Amino acid sequence: MQNFDYMTPTRLIFGKDVIGELPEVLGAIGKKVLLTYGGGSIKKIGLYDKVKELLKDFEITELSGIQPNPKYDPSVLDGVRLCKENGIEVILSVGGGSVLDCSKAIAAGAKYDGDPWDLISYKVKAKAALPIVDIITLAATGSEYDCGGVISRTETNDKIGYVDPVLYPVCSFLDPTYTFTVNAKHTAAGCADAMNHIMEQYFCEDSTLLNDGFCEAGLKSLMVNTKACLANPEDYKARAEMMFACTLGCNGIYALGNSETGWPLHGIEHALSAYYDITHGEGLAIITPRWMKYILSEKTVDRFVKYGVNVFGVDSSLDKFEIAEKAIQATYDFFVSIGIPMHLREVGIDDSRIDEMAHHIAVNEGLENAWVPLTEEDIANIIRDSL
Amino acid sequence: MQNFDYMTPTRLIFGKDVIGELPEVLGAIGKKVLLTYGGGSIKKIGLYDKVKELLKDFEITELSGIQPNPKYDPSVLDGVRLCKENGIEVILSVGGGSVLDCSKAIAAGAKYDGDPWDLISYKVKAKAALPIVDIITLAATGSEYDCGGVISRTETNDKIGYVDPVLYPVCSFLDPTYTFTVNAKHTAAGCADAMNHIMEQYFCEDSTLLNDGFCEAGLKSLMVNTKACLANPEDYKARAEMMFACTLGCNGIYALGNSETGWPLHGIEHALSAYYDITHGEGLAIITPRWMKYILSEKTVDRFVKYGVNVFGVDSSLDKFEIAEKAIQATYDFFVSIGIPMHLREVGIDDSRIDEMAHHIAVNEGLENAWVPLTEEDIANIIRDSL
Repeated sequence: MQNFDYMTPTRLIFGKDVIGELPEVLGAIGKKVLLTYGGGSIKKIGLYDKVKELLKDFEITELSGIQPNPKYDPSVLDGVRLCKENGIEVILSVGGGSVLDCSKAIAAGAKYDGDPWDLISYKVKAKAALPIVDIITLAATGSEYDCGGVISRTETNDKIGYVDPVLYPVCSFLDPTYTFTVNAKHTAAGCADAMNHIMEQYFCEDSTLLNDGFCEAGLKSLMVNTKACLANPEDYKARAEMMFACTLGCNGIYALGNSETGWPLHGIEHALSAYYDITHGEGLAIITPRWMKYILSEKTVDRFVKYGVNVFGVDSSLDKFEIAEKAIQATYDFFVSIGIPMHLREVGIDDSRIDEMAHHIAVNEGLENAWVPLTEEDIANIIRDSL
Repeated sequence: MQNFDYMTPTRLIFGKDVIGELPEVLGAIGKKVLLTYGGGSIKKIGLYDKVKELLKDFEITELSGIQPNPKYDPSVLDGVRLCKENGIEVILSVGGGSVLDCSKAIAAGAKYDGDPWDLISYKVKAKAALPIVDIITLAATGSEYDCGGVISRTETNDKIGYVDPVLYPVCSFLDPTYTFTVNAKHTAAGCADAMNHIMEQYFCEDSTLLNDGFCEAGLKSLMVNTKACLANPEDYKARAEMMFACTLGCNGIYALGNSETGWPLHGIEHALSAYYDITHGEGLAIITPRWMKYILSEKTVDRFVKYGVNVFGVDSSLDKFEIAEKAIQATYDFFVSIGIPMHLREVGIDDSRIDEMAHHIAVNEGLENAWVPLTEEDIANIIRDSL
């Protein structure tokens, strides 16, 4: 078991109708609010009106149109400008992980005099950030319970995950009913994203019985409940369980004390969605079984055996490589079963830029230090296997 | 899945040799420190000298001799007086859960003008508490990661669990090597305590797949690692895993969103150790299988089936009551296997005060609202079955 230093100061208010507590939570921080959201789905489900009604005594400035794979320009830059112009005291992010990730970059940028990219690219360490409260409408990224975000810069094909303890939300409101209208595509992609967050912590050199059990429970819960959500999008219990399993995804609690893994799946996928703007969870799902196959070896097989037996119920009396291959196939089959397109071709990626992406990943993502180190050639091979 | 409101702001610094960070952590809070500890085991293992050396630039006042089942008089009262007399800015608790529980009561009492018992007995709500930092030397209570404590008042046979968000430690240092010298009796009792914390959350009406997996992983991890610790007290990995599984015990994370259970085992055990000052974990272990047998019914059997199959690997094809009974027997057998005396007689409790204790519990512990409600008669029967 590895040493660790862990703290998550975020308050989680979870359940149906908890949003009534929003004015009290927000009011304790400030009255000047930057309300951030995406393309308008929060208007369709009535949440926008509800928030405006609850906050009628607050001064609200709005930043809308934040996209999936949120963009530095214009969203982060606009948000920072609005915060500075309006003396914003707190950011209220309403939407999924993209809106919240963008809001985190804005929160740090608003307290910094220079170019906010300095912070995102780790050139300068953020000293402070505006406080953030969020209302989550998509079960996926777990951004509501971590201090990281992912921001894309189109002109350079950069998609950077940045992490800073000043970015923990003060409070996250999690009402599963807000996810009832999430369509099948994004329900499935959210599941794949969250499963990958767990797998990125599970596949490692040194883990514990407790952490393995936590991760396996997370994976099984996500699979069962995502299927239930797809069968009945208004199944409260399934939406609730899925939401909470996602919330814990990047917070660390699934695997405190596990050895570092290097998060290779995210390292590879970030380039795919930076170059092609695909849905993050789909990109992850496509890469995952190919990465698994690629790294399967005498060194890694025991981990895949544990995964296969405990997560998919593969017969433990089989040969270890047979168990591992069945586990990898079961991973692939599960993603197919929830409707994820499992080839890069299907999401608009061909072989024309593979070497360029592999080079970008090799230079930027540090995967030579992953659990199973990956060279530029390895990365290109995995992407090619995923076409 | 039930609504919940959750936040744990405590920082966990976990692993071998992490204590080097103590001066920095403590220094950020204050220089006037109340150092609390128990009967001197921290001197035997060299931790007392190490702490004093690390804190040579701090002003230290000491409160020693805090007992297991920590006492209001003299420990809490002495600690409050020392804090007030010396302008203490931060409490450093070095020891197990009893020292930390006592320190929490002192921390609240030091910021209150009246009788500290007002706070512990919930007559008055604490408005603030001195900040607490702790170094844990016994894997058991999880007090290092929750905001509760248990204090005994000898003259009234009260043993009260009090909970207040102002009591979260600022930072808990968890170095598993400090538990190498914990003897077999207290290693086993710590395991039983932590297993009970999990069971008190697991046996409920409404749970989730995720939470069940977390709890089952916690129970299995504790059982496997405790046996390893008993076989080799200096097995770092086993001590580390056991320590962390205990740390999460009362924090809530094992079962956020589960329905309330009423914590019946603790409700009963607190009276046993208040009247007879027995080791808390042993009292819990003795009561547990008798409580399980007592509440086993058509209503509860499915929960015991899940427990039996997933925690003890009982054959799931058997009759459900047969599985449940095997699970209960396996629980009993496990406690026996780690050396816990499994009859109240063996820890000095006879039948002379059962009715008095049952009455005390029925009046004070609210077990009529437990998952399976318990009357005064039920409580007396369970204690009698445990003799």
